[in-house]
Amino acid sequence: MTESSENTLKVAHQAFANLQHGLSTGDWNPMLDLLTEDFTFWFPVGPYHGLNEGKAKAQDFFQYVSEVFEQSIKLTSLDRVTHNETTVVFEFRDEGRMWQEPYKNRIAVSFDVRGDKICGYREYFGSDGKSN
Amino acid sequence: MTESSENTLKVAHQAFANLQHGLSTGDWNPMLDLLTEDFTFWFPVGPYHGLNEGKAKAQDFFQYVSEVFEQSIKLTSLDRVTHNETTVVFEFRDEGRMWQEPYKNRIAVSFDVRGDKICGYREYFGSDGKSN
Repeated sequence: MTESSENTLKVAHQAFANLQHGLSTGDWNPMLDLLTEDFTFWFPVGPYHGLNEGKAKAQDFFQYVSEVFEQSIKLTSLDRVTHNETTVVFEFRDEGRMWQEPYKNRIAVSFDVRGDKICGYREYFGSDGKSN
Repeated sequence: MTESSENTLKVAHQAFANLQHGLSTGDWNPMLDLLTEDFTFWFPVGPYHGLNEGKAKAQDFFQYVSEVFEQSIKLTSLDRVTHNETTVVFEFRDEGRMWQEPYKNRIAVSFDVRGDKICGYREYFGSDGKSN
């Protein structure tokens, strides 16, 4: 593994941990601190579906995520971590409640890393959230 | 890149090409030839949602996919290819018709490679297929 590839993996693992921290506590500051100002993200559904640009938009989004899941969501399985020099893909499963209904999904998230920050994020769903 | 990592990438690129070939022609034999007998796959929605086991199930699934899309589906963008020694993740976009309605999606597919075959496949959707 090259030095830049190792750094990419380290930064993305920190982002993944900060994402779990945000989901379980509602504190998104550690996650926001890791994002570049020109951060972009793609999300599959709802008011943030499609491409979203800028760190301010990310802050709104994380607030929305906390409202949707009310800190109920838990990681149940980390299935794969696949990476190269600039991108790290996490495949995992989670479950909890979404708008107070039972929720269970398979997820793939792909982080693009630039230096010690995350500059891009793409999320994909492996189910409709009701079945697994 | 190590030798096994190079082989993994080569096999997965062949599988990705065979997948596109199946989608555009309805001929799934090259794809099926690449699968191990104990091949498993996860799909997000419909009659094959969740975990599916065995090559025979894959054959049924590909037939179903051809019925859904009637060979209309085209790859419009290959956004990322991320891999390690055993797994390759393709992030891409495609569009066409699904049950004769306009269809457009972002997709992540993750192939697990064993030797010169694909032993696992996990698909994830980046949108609901109607929006991008």
